[in-house]
Amino acid sequence: MDTRNLIGYSYLPEMGNKFKAKDPALGVDLPGEFYAANLSEANAAMELADKAFAVYRTIDKNKKAAFLRSIADEMKAIGGEIIERAMSESGLPAPRLQGELARTTNQLYLFAALLEEGSWVEAVIDTAIPDRQPLPRVDIRKMMVPLGPAVVFGASNFPLAYSVAGGDTAAALAAGCPVVVKAHPAHPGTSALVAGAIKKAAERHQMPEGVFSMLYDDGYVIGEALVKHQKTKIVTFTGSFTGGMALMKMARERDEPIPVFAEMGSINPVILLPQALENRAEELAKIYSSITANAGQFCTKPGLLFAVKSEGLDRFKKGLAEGIATVDSATMLTLGICSNFGKLSKDMVGDSAVSVIAQSEKLNTQKTNQGLAVVTEIAAADFMADGKYKEEVFGPYSMLVVADDMAQLEQVVGTLQGQLTASVMAEKEELPKYKSLTDKLANLAGRVILNGPPTGVEVGNAIVHGGPFPATTDSRFTSVGTSSIKRFVRPVCWQNWNEELLPDELKTDNPLNIWRLFNNEWIR
Amino acid sequence: MDTRNLIGYSYLPEMGNKFKAKDPALGVDLPGEFYAANLSEANAAMELADKAFAVYRTIDKNKKAAFLRSIADEMKAIGGEIIERAMSESGLPAPRLQGELARTTNQLYLFAALLEEGSWVEAVIDTAIPDRQPLPRVDIRKMMVPLGPAVVFGASNFPLAYSVAGGDTAAALAAGCPVVVKAHPAHPGTSALVAGAIKKAAERHQMPEGVFSMLYDDGYVIGEALVKHQKTKIVTFTGSFTGGMALMKMARERDEPIPVFAEMGSINPVILLPQALENRAEELAKIYSSITANAGQFCTKPGLLFAVKSEGLDRFKKGLAEGIATVDSATMLTLGICSNFGKLSKDMVGDSAVSVIAQSEKLNTQKTNQGLAVVTEIAAADFMADGKYKEEVFGPYSMLVVADDMAQLEQVVGTLQGQLTASVMAEKEELPKYKSLTDKLANLAGRVILNGPPTGVEVGNAIVHGGPFPATTDSRFTSVGTSSIKRFVRPVCWQNWNEELLPDELKTDNPLNIWRLFNNEWIR
Repeated sequence: MDTRNLIGYSYLPEMGNKFKAKDPALGVDLPGEFYAANLSEANAAMELADKAFAVYRTIDKNKKAAFLRSIADEMKAIGGEIIERAMSESGLPAPRLQGELARTTNQLYLFAALLEEGSWVEAVIDTAIPDRQPLPRVDIRKMMVPLGPAVVFGASNFPLAYSVAGGDTAAALAAGCPVVVKAHPAHPGTSALVAGAIKKAAERHQMPEGVFSMLYDDGYVIGEALVKHQKTKIVTFTGSFTGGMALMKMARERDEPIPVFAEMGSINPVILLPQALENRAEELAKIYSSITANAGQFCTKPGLLFAVKSEGLDRFKKGLAEGIATVDSATMLTLGICSNFGKLSKDMVGDSAVSVIAQSEKLNTQKTNQGLAVVTEIAAADFMADGKYKEEVFGPYSMLVVADDMAQLEQVVGTLQGQLTASVMAEKEELPKYKSLTDKLANLAGRVILNGPPTGVEVGNAIVHGGPFPATTDSRFTSVGTSSIKRFVRPVCWQNWNEELLPDELKTDNPLNIWRLFNNEWIR
Repeated sequence: MDTRNLIGYSYLPEMGNKFKAKDPALGVDLPGEFYAANLSEANAAMELADKAFAVYRTIDKNKKAAFLRSIADEMKAIGGEIIERAMSESGLPAPRLQGELARTTNQLYLFAALLEEGSWVEAVIDTAIPDRQPLPRVDIRKMMVPLGPAVVFGASNFPLAYSVAGGDTAAALAAGCPVVVKAHPAHPGTSALVAGAIKKAAERHQMPEGVFSMLYDDGYVIGEALVKHQKTKIVTFTGSFTGGMALMKMARERDEPIPVFAEMGSINPVILLPQALENRAEELAKIYSSITANAGQFCTKPGLLFAVKSEGLDRFKKGLAEGIATVDSATMLTLGICSNFGKLSKDMVGDSAVSVIAQSEKLNTQKTNQGLAVVTEIAAADFMADGKYKEEVFGPYSMLVVADDMAQLEQVVGTLQGQLTASVMAEKEELPKYKSLTDKLANLAGRVILNGPPTGVEVGNAIVHGGPFPATTDSRFTSVGTSSIKRFVRPVCWQNWNEELLPDELKTDNPLNIWRLFNNEWIR
């Protein structure tokens, strides 16, 4: 594990603020010393990324795909080491990290396959119509091209899948954008291992130096320098509302506006409809595991449950309480996250409008930084009276909002802000009655779910992991799935261009055999 | 012509700052009094737009299409009156405005057809795979939905096609977004006529009140209030760099980030390759008409020409000078635009590094506000030495940048900032030699053109009217053509949703017969 800052193919001398990784479960420092990068290093990383861009954007798609595959292969080759270090740094359990490593490498393979298949460039061709009246139509052909160097911020809660070689990096590299990662200080060792894997893959495939760099910082200086750098063309981030908005503020101080895709907080409302509660309250109560999985440290954790009071709801609450009581405390990602969770959940529990449905008492005293699951309850009227109940409590916490009737339930759901997800638990036969409610959900969230928990995000073509503000800073994009590549590209059209000099994607005989909108028909 | 501010279906009482439209060609006030809206009216317009959105977004696509068609029909019904008023207010000649009216109504018909056809929603369907290992795949289906109320700023140089019922409004209404137009103060009467046509069409089709509103202001207060309003979800603008950046600044002061698509300045470089100059210098010199058409008041006017010194270039310059000398002076859009053009072109002509190739002397003394065509020349080294030569001179002006050789030409082109267009005049046989140069153009601009002038923008599926900053504030979108609708939408996915309750676009049997990416195949 080389713990130094990496610019292109060179590790930098050890200088600057030194910091160490912490084991949150044991409260001790982990091996390895890391050094906060300085401003001239941040500048050098971006300048090299820009130089690399001039070459990388023109590299054959199959070569880019091979590079992405190699990153995944290199990660797998040191998978044991990565998982061991990530466990120590994050406190997350081995099965979760094994799954996350598989997801991370699968994302790289997915984007490699996307490149090889080639249709993602959205080729659109309108051929010339010389005899059109009153004016001839000229030949115009468009496709997506990369934006330029991307700055990717590692996420605390996904040390692999949304960090150094995570979804943002995979999509950016696939799009043709060099990447400069700002490593998350909670898992610098994991980051170092993965960065080493990317460096190896880039060297093996003779990618232009600077296609990937990674810098450390235990503060905010380097992140700010990267966001504000003139050569930076897009920024991506997954994390808290506060963190995302801090990046937005920096980006707003730039002369040149650039896209900032920040996936921020979400409380992921889950609506329990009456018939479903009556028929299967006990089954629905199993949502406790979605609330508490990995200490509730998912951006899609169901943080709000909505229902109308009923006998079925009482059974649901009983089942939920029984479930929560079985949940062991779990190590939270960082000291800051754990103390913030402790404070926020304690505030909620102590609130006079709030009662406690369930609270786990299974504290693991062998470990530090433990989060204990809590589910609370509030009346819909009280919930609407104060905005504080709508704020995300990151951790194993959820709140049941109890309405007097469906009209009040619909009213309270109407007060919610933008979300990543919104779920409905319903019997099929009752759903049509509540169409105005479910229609609202599609205006509220990026993903609406029937009879399933919001946790567990499928990485495919149809997924939307995004949503209206404050869930993200740009609802027009998803940060998960093949479409997430669209964040990194822009369209260019060639008018009356020479057939032989057109990109292969736009040649008339379609040598790449990709799907194209050709004179208004999707063909290949 | 009702000159009052319009909110939904109500014209507002006449109050606030009064202003009149000016005839730029005659320097006199035109009939009709207009009133700057006030802040409470701006607020009311946005609140009503938001209320309308809740209904409008759910209205059947064919009804929306009929509404768009009616707008075009209503405009045609008063086409003579619109053109007469627009001529008086803009100084643009009748044939140009007739063409622009046709383009405007055609854009509305185009978006109506796009809605009826239906594939624009980018439906993507991944069906469930219950036996997938290690985890089942759940059914996920996504499509585009509208963002919410749009604020559209009328453009000075397109009183019809980029103003009240122009491309932005047509795309927004097609997407399902209500529109509040801030009318451009240079053509308030034209705006009033078109707004009346939209109001009639909306009433006839019983669109929710607030689907369209229009406010006047002769200053910046109302524009700022609209951009900063909490209910505003997207802003579009076509105009100067200064104007676009002022809107960006306002938007950056919002809590909630929203997309601002500002199409701003562009100097549209045209590269004249050696063989083409040698073979057909005189034909290439006809670009003078693209430089001077409608007093050069196009965002795609070729403002910079690049060539290597040669005998062919001398003939080109001679032809250009002869062409420019035949061009009559033309009325410019506003006093401000004309005086700014006069100042900037005079500064260039008086610059010691700059010489004059051609200057028209055909001043029309019967009219005021006249722009006279000028083309200047500068050596590439001098051009690179000062950024001021790269600034847009809006009007009938262009500058020829003469390089010593192709290496210097490529170097100087490499110093350019983002552009809407970049053109190459070339013989087919010489083009492959300059691939590194033409590759750079695709990184510089939204549209690259071979052997044609950049003016004249085809409104189709493949067009890109956009480009890297400072040409626009968001290079990921086009403001012309069917794809311009993408600025106004975001994706939503439905997971495990009930077949009967899915939007028709996403039902398995494809009742709308639209193109969809269905389990990775584009079919319908």
